[in-house]
Amino acid sequence: MEEESSRTLFASARVARLATMGQEGPRLVPVVFAVDGDHIYTAVDHKPKRSRYLQRLADIRVSPAVTLLADHYEENWDLLWWVRADGIATILEEPTDTSRGLDLLVEKYPQYQNRRPDGPVVAIAVTAWRSWSASGVVGLS
Amino acid sequence: MEEESSRTLFASARVARLATMGQEGPRLVPVVFAVDGDHIYTAVDHKPKRSRYLQRLADIRVSPAVTLLADHYEENWDLLWWVRADGIATILEEPTDTSRGLDLLVEKYPQYQNRRPDGPVVAIAVTAWRSWSASGVVGLS
Repeated sequence: MEEESSRTLFASARVARLATMGQEGPRLVPVVFAVDGDHIYTAVDHKPKRSRYLQRLADIRVSPAVTLLADHYEENWDLLWWVRADGIATILEEPTDTSRGLDLLVEKYPQYQNRRPDGPVVAIAVTAWRSWSASGVVGLS
Repeated sequence: MEEESSRTLFASARVARLATMGQEGPRLVPVVFAVDGDHIYTAVDHKPKRSRYLQRLADIRVSPAVTLLADHYEENWDLLWWVRADGIATILEEPTDTSRGLDLLVEKYPQYQNRRPDGPVVAIAVTAWRSWSASGVVGLS
């Protein structure tokens, strides 16, 4: 049950942060994403970011264990929460493999409707959902 | 100059995410923090989080290279930005060492004024500030 509410809360977030293991330390970047059961999809979208993302893809090829975090901050600290998804990342490049993730991303984000991402998709198979809230209850208010 | 504006923008954020290297993959948690030049301070605050933080401190003792990210999301993607600080973390435990960081944290966050953190302080010596904005300009609007 806690896993289910963690996943639902995570899926409702508009942005998450993706941590990967670089050779000299962790790397961290904000991502937009879509959730489908225990899979999270994020895409390499437009060209200006491409070189940065390619470095990240190289990291994933070496160390596929990644972590994503969605969190909520406000000045009333009793309302803080976060959800973390640990998983194993795979890079999808063939159109037959990327279409499912891209469809979900375009459905979630109207911003993608006129510029569907054309790059690789990172698919994360989540192995653990973890969450915390200051109130002790994880769920949508 | 870009470094200066990145640091200023990062310092203005109310929350950042701290990535550390665990044995099986990266770890990620939201943190409140204070910036003093090229040092970032974050504290182990109240007891409910303590066991989780202790695990993080153990990670840092093994792999002191960490990364922090502050980012801004809104539905107008032309206004997105993020700032990343890569650095080396040290764990401070003696009151003479922790007081500077704790003073800065209490000054930044009124929430700490009636419950000054009593645990260790993580001090990150930043080795690189990196930033990106959709508009191409990093700075406070």
